Amino acid sequence: MFAKEIYIARRKALVEKMSSVAPEGKRGIALFVGNVEAAAQYKDNPYKFRQDSSWLYYFGLDEPRMAAIIDLDNGEETLYADDVEIGDIIWMGPQPSVASKAAEVGISKSASYGSLNVTVTKALATGRDIHFLPPSRYYNTMKLASLVGIPEENVGKVAPIQEDGGRHASEELVKAVISMRLVKEECEIEQLDDAGALGQEMHTVARNSIKLGIIEQEIVGKMEACVLAKGWGVSFPTILTQHGETLHNHLHDKVVEPGKLMVIDAGAENNMHYASDFTRTYPTSGKFTQKQRDIYQIVCDCNELAFKLTKPRVSYRDIHLAVAKLMLEDLRSLDIVRGNLDNMVAEGIAGLFQPHGLGHNMGLDVHDMEDLGENLVGYDPGQKRSTQLGLGSLRMARKLVPGNVITDEPGIYFIPALIEKWKSEGTGKDYVNYGKLESYYDFGGIRLEDDVLVTADGARRTGPNRLPIQPDDIEEAMA
Amino acid sequence: MFAKEIYIARRKALVEKMSSVAPEGKRGIALFVGNVEAAAQYKDNPYKFRQDSSWLYYFGLDEPRMAAIIDLDNGEETLYADDVEIGDIIWMGPQPSVASKAAEVGISKSASYGSLNVTVTKALATGRDIHFLPPSRYYNTMKLASLVGIPEENVGKVAPIQEDGGRHASEELVKAVISMRLVKEECEIEQLDDAGALGQEMHTVARNSIKLGIIEQEIVGKMEACVLAKGWGVSFPTILTQHGETLHNHLHDKVVEPGKLMVIDAGAENNMHYASDFTRTYPTSGKFTQKQRDIYQIVCDCNELAFKLTKPRVSYRDIHLAVAKLMLEDLRSLDIVRGNLDNMVAEGIAGLFQPHGLGHNMGLDVHDMEDLGENLVGYDPGQKRSTQLGLGSLRMARKLVPGNVITDEPGIYFIPALIEKWKSEGTGKDYVNYGKLESYYDFGGIRLEDDVLVTADGARRTGPNRLPIQPDDIEEAMA
Repeated sequence: MFAKEIYIARRKALVEKMSSVAPEGKRGIALFVGNVEAAAQYKDNPYKFRQDSSWLYYFGLDEPRMAAIIDLDNGEETLYADDVEIGDIIWMGPQPSVASKAAEVGISKSASYGSLNVTVTKALATGRDIHFLPPSRYYNTMKLASLVGIPEENVGKVAPIQEDGGRHASEELVKAVISMRLVKEECEIEQLDDAGALGQEMHTVARNSIKLGIIEQEIVGKMEACVLAKGWGVSFPTILTQHGETLHNHLHDKVVEPGKLMVIDAGAENNMHYASDFTRTYPTSGKFTQKQRDIYQIVCDCNELAFKLTKPRVSYRDIHLAVAKLMLEDLRSLDIVRGNLDNMVAEGIAGLFQPHGLGHNMGLDVHDMEDLGENLVGYDPGQKRSTQLGLGSLRMARKLVPGNVITDEPGIYFIPALIEKWKSEGTGKDYVNYGKLESYYDFGGIRLEDDVLVTADGARRTGPNRLPIQPDDIEEAMA
Repeated sequence: MFAKEIYIARRKALVEKMSSVAPEGKRGIALFVGNVEAAAQYKDNPYKFRQDSSWLYYFGLDEPRMAAIIDLDNGEETLYADDVEIGDIIWMGPQPSVASKAAEVGISKSASYGSLNVTVTKALATGRDIHFLPPSRYYNTMKLASLVGIPEENVGKVAPIQEDGGRHASEELVKAVISMRLVKEECEIEQLDDAGALGQEMHTVARNSIKLGIIEQEIVGKMEACVLAKGWGVSFPTILTQHGETLHNHLHDKVVEPGKLMVIDAGAENNMHYASDFTRTYPTSGKFTQKQRDIYQIVCDCNELAFKLTKPRVSYRDIHLAVAKLMLEDLRSLDIVRGNLDNMVAEGIAGLFQPHGLGHNMGLDVHDMEDLGENLVGYDPGQKRSTQLGLGSLRMARKLVPGNVITDEPGIYFIPALIEKWKSEGTGKDYVNYGKLESYYDFGGIRLEDDVLVTADGARRTGPNRLPIQPDDIEEAMA
């Protein structure tokens, strides 16, 4: 945990932000329900506990079955959790009291978990607004529905509760939380660098473990070992595939074969629950073919361009588009596309090759705050989300400010099902050289990703040891 | 997956068992809801997928968001799941159809996941009984409550639905499933041996990694790496602690210190989702002190005695009690307890030292079928569960039959909070030498555990390479 002053200051800032939504006496309460254990095989055999990220941000306590209420009118804060009983002490050892846990994060009042119901019922009875965030998990959905007395399907709906009387997730609270979590504090940046170091160690182990004839899962096991030895675990399910064109491939059951490109997209979550997220693409045989190298160099140059353009006051949407333009220019030089660059960018031709966005916010979640709403997190007020393939998947489009931490992850994939779809529909027929593309149907895909902090006057990559990325450096590292 | 004939035969046997609960035409339907992805950090960042164990047993398909209905009157079987759309193919690659997945496990009918609702509504409207198992996860609870139109709190309640009209989990179905899963088939025993091999590899890595001065988490990382490289993951959260007296200690943040006893209780789940579960206790310095060795040898002898007594027609409750008697006899020779052995066993004095049961069933779950109800799983009809500390925690008390797979895990712990509680209440005052016990307050605990298959005429341990257990062998292995 951070020092308690950090949590006190964050909650104070949150109450201040929420003070603008209504006059004093009308602001209501903010209700936070932390995570409980999540069953893997059965109830008492849970997955490794992961606390809710917004809970961690404001309350720090990394334990299951806790809740909290902040009274937005008078600032009173209460932690709801149960003290352990003698039976539990036998099994779990002596435990600090709930009151002392509350004190660790600067909260002076505590009460039993069960009494949360009493407090919420009282607030409802006196007509107070109840602000809560849309939850990620089914338990939290059930719990909030039951506490607030609303249908489960309303719990995840985000709308302004000052306008419609509430009884759903609070857009006001969501926006206040996003505005804070988007801009990382110094103590968070340290953690992101730490998670970066772990992620870079994972990737180094992975690169050194690539060997023809082994099963992919062996590499994954070694990577995850690094993280488990020092951190919480992976920050997302590891992608390690010789079919990079399949963007979300979580199977690792294939034999490593010669001449393939292996995409490894993986990151670590450290013990403070901050994430890293890196991607590298390796030639399984240790050397790129010329055809592989040509495409690889384009992606590498796109990654570098994005980094060079990253600085305050530039929108990440514009950087995505600048990268798309460079990608199309280089693909044009390979005669894969033809025609006017600006027209191709405008018509979204890059989406055929990179059907995802250039990057996303990172922090306590690898797609930071995704469940609070992708558009609220990643788009400035008034900034419209595109419907084009690729640009439409851009999770972070905002004008950058110092303290943003984002990924820079261009990719080029040759996805036969997608190419065939565009071709049969006539999409991009004025630009795409479909004949030439046929020779790329067995190419696979390439993605290269770093994590980037926006600084006062530019940007720096997080994690102490940037992974080799230039094709010559990759071949040297694999030799 | 196993061959489809295995799943066909199991479902046929289940329908036959359920045919005795009501006359034909009155049997109703059996409804199975498989697991969906479970959010870790946020909805689309799930934990590694783990299918429901009973689903795996009858339907084999290891994928999220599937359900099935077996018509208990006419034997008709339907798989409910969704075919992937073009958008999904781009991200996930080409996928086999639901119909072909159904055929892989011998089911001829399939329908969309959404249409499950239609089928259940129709069954309800025509007054048919709906048999379902109590679920482990919140999603399945919500889904079943919504499908059957009952309060969520009823979904987990197990009672005979033929007697009260139902609208809760079906004791009839639970009993039928337990009767099958308790007795392992040949193909399952192979998997348990395979999971045993992985678990033994984990433990060997752990033993070889114990080093003074390192953080416990480093050892845990290495252990889990073995499993992740070849299997699904750990079969339960690893216990690795220098405070073995804290039975459920999942923190691994301590430095390995000299002179301690390190309890390592860990197991592997293989890719077919069968579990292993072993415990060994190591002297952190590589050599036992005499005091440690004296207690260690008692636990080791208890483990051996339990194994020798394990055979068909003997109840595991009686074996638990025989072990308790030996434990007390040996503790008496150390002057830790005094008095008549049979009286001490009858009064549950062993529970002060071993407040848990001798073992539990194992299979697809490490505590096999725990969520179907511990007493229904582990106790024969009419066999009462004790309320004594220790014996009352015994999860497997049944008369053994060939094909049972159980753990043999005696332990001795010196738990200051528990000892103080007994002492202040006067419990065991005629037998326990509380004065002597004071010198054990910093001792910690010892547990030794193997997995055991009940054979036609006795028992054998599962896993190919039994871990060293005799104190001399432990010291030699650590040298």
